[in-house]
Amino acid sequence: VLTALALDGLPEVAAGDDLAALVVAALPAGEALRDGDALVVAHKVVSKAEGRTRALADIEPGAQARELAAAQGKDPRQVQAVLDETHELLRAERNVLICVTHHGLVCANAGVDASNAAPGSETLVLLPADPDASARGLRARLRELTGAAPAVVIADSFGRAWRHGQVDVAIGAAGLQPLDDWRGRHDAAGRELHATWIAVADQLASAADLARGGKDAGRPVVLVRGLERHVTPDDGPGARALVRPAQEDLFR
Amino acid sequence: VLTALALDGLPEVAAGDDLAALVVAALPAGEALRDGDALVVAHKVVSKAEGRTRALADIEPGAQARELAAAQGKDPRQVQAVLDETHELLRAERNVLICVTHHGLVCANAGVDASNAAPGSETLVLLPADPDASARGLRARLRELTGAAPAVVIADSFGRAWRHGQVDVAIGAAGLQPLDDWRGRHDAAGRELHATWIAVADQLASAADLARGGKDAGRPVVLVRGLERHVTPDDGPGARALVRPAQEDLFR
Repeated sequence: VLTALALDGLPEVAAGDDLAALVVAALPAGEALRDGDALVVAHKVVSKAEGRTRALADIEPGAQARELAAAQGKDPRQVQAVLDETHELLRAERNVLICVTHHGLVCANAGVDASNAAPGSETLVLLPADPDASARGLRARLRELTGAAPAVVIADSFGRAWRHGQVDVAIGAAGLQPLDDWRGRHDAAGRELHATWIAVADQLASAADLARGGKDAGRPVVLVRGLERHVTPDDGPGARALVRPAQEDLFR
Repeated sequence: VLTALALDGLPEVAAGDDLAALVVAALPAGEALRDGDALVVAHKVVSKAEGRTRALADIEPGAQARELAAAQGKDPRQVQAVLDETHELLRAERNVLICVTHHGLVCANAGVDASNAAPGSETLVLLPADPDASARGLRARLRELTGAAPAVVIADSFGRAWRHGQVDVAIGAAGLQPLDDWRGRHDAAGRELHATWIAVADQLASAADLARGGKDAGRPVVLVRGLERHVTPDDGPGARALVRPAQEDLFR
């Protein structure tokens, strides 16, 4: 059985906070982390703890940002923040900027997000600079605090080509096998398998998001049990392994 | 808490089988379906119950199939079956055919699958002709048999643009809100939301796949609890609502 429990009671997170300690404090009474557990953390609290935010008022938009903002009906300072996080702009249409981030992630607005920043302050929340490193750091600190080393996944909600709506995906991971590779293996009846390379970390992020109970629930951390087979003692390749290199991608 | 339990003991499914009855018989002892439950069913058992299979030996490949098969190193009869299920061929590169199916789904090989057919018979399994209708039919039959009307999702494993690996998505649905629309709504602190249109049905399919315990486990049916807020008395719009129309898609 797979279970996913969203933790209540995590406080508003600020730069410099010990996020791992806040997570441990938010565990239900009597509940302790175990080695085979997985913790899925919405990237926003990670970014806020790491100070990966920008005050809108401090941003000076350049010519490209002003031009894009005018064409797309956006705030030029916000567009400048997006461009600063962007390695390549894939599309600028229909009031959406689809970007390849410096990490290689393909997503709207390079993951720059005005929601859930501190109220009234007009602050933008960026993606962590190195989400796999963030996941490793969280895991190491959780191990210090509890003795257990759960898998840690850092998640964000991404739109997709071809399908409506957003799903949560893994942008950072530690201690989790991100892809389960069945290529060349066979099913129970000896036939070659159709789905052979399973994006475990992305499916885990999506499962956790379902457990949150809605985007206004303010529950960024979800404890998932039942995936012991994918949790690894070493930190592993991280969510970077899920990024398809541009030269292998048929749809850019 | 979200829980996902893969059912053991479903037999090999054949054309004409009463799949709903097989699912009910596979429930753990003492466990009964409830109205707020969700059942996620791998499409292959639905297709097999509906007779949506083709014997490879009966297929006569045409000129396009022979040409594509030669270029891609595939069986021309299998390519013909793919073309028969294809509305538009988007890419034929790197030994993969990316197709828009007659349902509008974008996936490899139009969902035609040689694995998990009856052993030795070289049978291809197609997608259900109308997966939303299949989901509605399953739900109606479950209600007849048990009095409960759980949500039903029919899932398949699809690759994605930009990211490695496959995730399960919903190709059919009944009794589930497929998309949770937060556009225009605000978070707990009154700020406009970033992720505002959540593909609930796809996240549910992915969560269920994680509970299966690997592609050789032979557990096509997963019972998910804790999503009562998304389960609806009426069958609703189905998974068709998740398909982004070609003219709104920036990546084809």
